[in-house]
This record gives sequence, C-alpha cells and structure tokens, in this order.
Amino acid sequence: MICVLCGGVGAARMLTGLVQVTDPSSIVAVVNTGDDTELHGLSISPDLDTITYTLAGAVNLETGWGLAGESWQAMSALERLGGAERTWFRLGDRDLGTHLYRTGRLREGATLSEVTAELAAAFGLAVRLLPMSDDPVRTVLRTAGGGELCFQEYFVKHRHAVAVEAVRFEGAEASRPAPGVLEAIEQATVVVLAPSNPVVSIGPVLAVPGVEEALAARRPDVVGVSPIVGGAALKGPADRLLVELGGEASAAGVARVLSGVLGTLVIDEVDRHLAGEVEAAGVRAVVADTVMSTPARARRLAEAVLAAPAGAGEG
Amino acid sequence: MICVLCGGVGAARMLTGLVQVTDPSSIVAVVNTGDDTELHGLSISPDLDTITYTLAGAVNLETGWGLAGESWQAMSALERLGGAERTWFRLGDRDLGTHLYRTGRLREGATLSEVTAELAAAFGLAVRLLPMSDDPVRTVLRTAGGGELCFQEYFVKHRHAVAVEAVRFEGAEASRPAPGVLEAIEQATVVVLAPSNPVVSIGPVLAVPGVEEALAARRPDVVGVSPIVGGAALKGPADRLLVELGGEASAAGVARVLSGVLGTLVIDEVDRHLAGEVEAAGVRAVVADTVMSTPARARRLAEAVLAAPAGAGEG
Repeated sequence: MICVLCGGVGAARMLTGLVQVTDPSSIVAVVNTGDDTELHGLSISPDLDTITYTLAGAVNLETGWGLAGESWQAMSALERLGGAERTWFRLGDRDLGTHLYRTGRLREGATLSEVTAELAAAFGLAVRLLPMSDDPVRTVLRTAGGGELCFQEYFVKHRHAVAVEAVRFEGAEASRPAPGVLEAIEQATVVVLAPSNPVVSIGPVLAVPGVEEALAARRPDVVGVSPIVGGAALKGPADRLLVELGGEASAAGVARVLSGVLGTLVIDEVDRHLAGEVEAAGVRAVVADTVMSTPARARRLAEAVLAAPAGAGEG
Repeated sequence: MICVLCGGVGAARMLTGLVQVTDPSSIVAVVNTGDDTELHGLSISPDLDTITYTLAGAVNLETGWGLAGESWQAMSALERLGGAERTWFRLGDRDLGTHLYRTGRLREGATLSEVTAELAAAFGLAVRLLPMSDDPVRTVLRTAGGGELCFQEYFVKHRHAVAVEAVRFEGAEASRPAPGVLEAIEQATVVVLAPSNPVVSIGPVLAVPGVEEALAARRPDVVGVSPIVGGAALKGPADRLLVELGGEASAAGVARVLSGVLGTLVIDEVDRHLAGEVEAAGVRAVVADTVMSTPARARRLAEAVLAAPAGAGEG
C-alpha cells in the first residue's frame, strides 16, 4: 500500500502517475482540507475535488481544476444578481452538483470522509481518498497589512498577489486525523509527499495532531517531490510563500521545511546542483525529471518516487 | 396602495393582472414563506421566486415556476452522484444563481426582506415584494399515516398525493410580520387575497401574529379570489386539502375558511349558484371570470377585484 499526502493540482498529477505503476486500489490519498471553504452556503473542498475529477479523467486539463466541458449558467445568473464580488470563486454548473451533494450529505450528518468516499465511488475511482480530517481546519494567511485572508480569498480572489507574513491552521489543534489516515501512514510501504505547496498544502496535513509524528516514525520511507523547480513553483505561490515566511524558494528550501518528516526528496534535474544542500538538511536527494507535463512523464516520476527509498537516488 | 397576500403561481398571475390596471410601484405583495425550505444547504423561497420570475417576465410559462429557457446541468450531475432521491426538487442552473445569492446574503446576516428587495430590484420589479416574515415559519402537514411532511415534500416529492390530517405552521407563534407588512395592510385602499390555497398559502400568512387581526380590522376592504372553480382547484391540492381538513371544496368552502378576514369573495361565473352560500358565511360574493389563462383575462379579473369593495358585485 502506498500513502500519498496531497494538495491539489500537483498531487492530482502525481496520482495519475502512480496509478499507472501500482494497483490503484492499493493507493491511499490523504488530502489537504485546509483550503475548504463555505460559499453561498455550500461546502466546497477544492483539493478533494481536483483529485477526484483528475483521477476520473473528468478534469478541465487547461485549468487543472473544475470539470471539462463545464457550463456557467449559475455563475452568470449570480453575477447578474450580485456582481463580480460574488463570483470570484467560479463554480461550474456540473461542479455545483458535487457541492450540492456534499453539502446535503454533511447537513444530514455524514462525515466528510463518508461523503468523500461516496463521491469517489460515484466518479469510479479505485484510489482510496481520505480527507486529512473530518474536523474543520482552515488555512488563514496574515497579510503584510495585518489583515487575514482565508486560503481561497488569498489564492483565487487576490490571485496570491499579496505579501504574506504568517500562516496559521485554524482548528488544527482540536482536529483529529480522519479514520484511516494514521493507519495508512503507519502501514504504507512508501509514504509520498506529493509536489504540493509545502506551506499551505502539506502544512495543514502536518498540523493535524498525530500526523507529523506518524510521518517522522516512517521517515526513511517518506519520499517527497519538490514543487519548486529551478527556483520557481510550477504552479501557485509556493516560491513566494517560502521566501516570505523566512525560507528559500528552492528544492533545498523545501527540504529544510520538511526535514523533520522527509527521508528522501526527489528534485528536478535542473536542480541537480542543489543535491548537496538538500542532504545538508538531513534529507536524501534523488534527481529525476519532475515536470509532469504528460501522463508518460508522470508515470516515470512515479517510478522514480517509489524506487527512491530503496536507494535508487543519485544524490 | 394595494396590498396583495400571495402564495405562488395563482398570486403571480393575479399580480400580472394588477400591474396592468394600477401603478406597479403602488402594489405591495406580502408573500407566503411557509413553503420555504433548505435543500443542499441552500435557502429556497419558492413563492417569492415564482412571483419575482413571473413579474419579471422570466418565468417558465409551461410550468408556472422556474425560469424560461433553463438548463439542468447541476441537477443532472447531482442525480448521477446521489440518484433521483436528491433531485425531486428541481433547481435549474440559472435558478441556482438566485438561491446562491439568497443563501450567501442570509449567511452574511441580511434579512429575508432585504434579500427579497435586492432580488426584486435585480429582476427589475416595480412591485414591492415582502416576505410575510423574516423569521422562519414552516408549513408542516401531518399525513394519514401519522408522519409529518414539510410542504415541499408534500407538494413536490409526493405530488400532494397523500391524505392530510392536519396542518401546522412551525415557528409561526414566535414569528413577527416582516417590516412593512402590517403597515401595508393598514394603509392599503384594497387588500387582495390572491387566488392561492387558503390552507397552505394564505394560512401561513394569517398565522403570523398580528396579520389576521390587521386584516380583520380592514375586513370591508379585503377582497379574496376563490382558487376553487367548479369544485376543483385550478392548480395544486386546495380542493383535497379543504375536504381533508373538514371543509368543502367549493367557493363557499373558501369563504367559510376565510370569513374572519374576508369582506368580499370573487367567485367564478361557473360558481354563480354558490353566491348565496358565500354570503351565508358572512362574505359578500362578486361573480367574475376568474380563470387567468391570458394576460387580458388577468387584467379583467384585476379590474373586478379592485372594484369589488365598492359594491360592484352581483351577489
């Protein structure tokens, strides 16, 4: 069994590689829910949905999120009623079906784990999807001005174009790992930290009490993939956030942030020269092609990741 | 100023007649919210929406509810995920824009009155729309089996094909009339009870403390239109409900249920023979063509209604 700690788009791509090289039903994906939000009364879990849609082959490949062939009648109507202020988080018509289902089930008393499994089954997924927690944890970013933004405000509404001074995970202290999360970490042959933002995607998962300790106990078998390639994030604000929070926008910076749990970090070929710095942080470095621009490249990266703990690295 | 107590489709048609014969901005529509429901986390106000869409010329004329030219992507997606059990209340994609807006505003702390006014303005309505109350009142029907159904379960899910033993208006005792409701009743030259179900559409409005008393004080100027024509409801279960609750499915039965507040009842020409029975209930009878199958017929009925308190009746 392989356990994968996941954010959104990067993790979804990593999983599309892993399902090509290992039995999908032996993969447990533990997904960040710090990005979850309530909008218009609906419970929205962006990372869970991105992974579900991607593994189902239903994702919009151009954006990396949402459904392919989506229509936007509800958003158009809402914008006519309430203006652009209400529609910065775009909910497609078919995507709304997912949010209506999730919200209805949660209101009936189902846990997020249960709803996530139901949605995964409805989308035909063989991979087992777990939210990191059934309790609400919310990533909150303090901006340079002193104000606070929830993750989606920061990421979507402001397009992460604001300086961040601190990140906190509201509710994390009181949260418990969702059923199966700790067991998956404990029993996996390899635990993969997907190439997701280490601060705001992997960070919330680690903030759930018990998760970081469980990972640390499996450290030799924990393999991360750097989401920073050539000093830049492939997607999103990971590079800026690392610098703003006192770190470094590099594979070595990622290694330092995650060194407590990471046995091995897979870094891109363009970062080969950073292998020494990664290892100086106490993390084995393995060099591979980490840019998953095609399914074949995702598959090759998955092979490299699964082989990494066995000492296939070049670092 | 004309005040109109409203249910859904019948009231919407009555209003389309009234706006042809009097300044729309001098009409205050007080609308039943006992039908309101929460589905999938969304706050839905069917009667308010039916009236808004109808007055905006945006309603689906075939069904009498929902928007013309609607698409159903969200419902199709929801049905694939959760089955028909979750989609018996059909929410079109553009209609969802209304519910997303309403729910979002209510969550922000706006009152239903405020949201209703905002939606009416966005749809270009000149008529002033008021919910009967900003407090939640829910029509609950006890069925012959002893179970209870909320109004939409009864009306839509079961297509009102179950026997009803009793009706109650949950929350009514603690509710207050929405701002402007009592003033509209007190100050109107004519108060119209639209041809809506007297039990489950007009009944909830009367159950809001203060409304029935305010109407009774204006009784000579209160004119109803019978929703029962020739012993049958033009739409919905008014005829069955009247009988099931111990009354009679006729214009006279309507007069008896509403005799405490009704000065005059406009009955259809086919019910001319019931005028004596209506008057025996203490309610003046006026005979007119009450079937609003065209805008012109709705206009003529509106003229008859507004003339009724002045003694234009034939009863």
